[in-house]
Amino acid sequence: MKKSVLDPQGAAVEKALAALGYGNVGRVRVGKYMELLLEKASEEEASAQVEEMCRRLLTNPVIEEYTYRIYRADDGVDK
Amino acid sequence: MKKSVLDPQGAAVEKALAALGYGNVGRVRVGKYMELLLEKASEEEASAQVEEMCRRLLTNPVIEEYTYRIYRADDGVDK
Repeated sequence: MKKSVLDPQGAAVEKALAALGYGNVGRVRVGKYMELLLEKASEEEASAQVEEMCRRLLTNPVIEEYTYRIYRADDGVDK
Repeated sequence: MKKSVLDPQGAAVEKALAALGYGNVGRVRVGKYMELLLEKASEEEASAQVEEMCRRLLTNPVIEEYTYRIYRADDGVDK
């Protein structure tokens, strides 16, 4: 979520945390996390494909920002 | 989400990606991402507090796993 976009879920979490005594917690933002396995792709191909999928389907550029990291399946996704 | 737990949102994303021609994408899992700012906490305090908040409110241990990273606000959260 972009900073300028209202995040009611984040606000609810912040309020619930405060009610539990965690008054030192602020600026709570809730977003989405995704894990995908890309078969037979080099790091460069994976990176290009992820960018394209984010643009075409996975993100809403009006309200969301995104970042991603590429791992080899044998040292990340499989664990 | 634990691997053993059904993730209908991930399955829907995987299907939509396949329909767009991304047939090489598998094992899609959708989860939550949260950012929180903890005021006046050392790294050790922050870590302990995050663990506690995850246990008490932020995660459902029956179906979810979690990981977290601690950053100093001046080199992370504020950007």
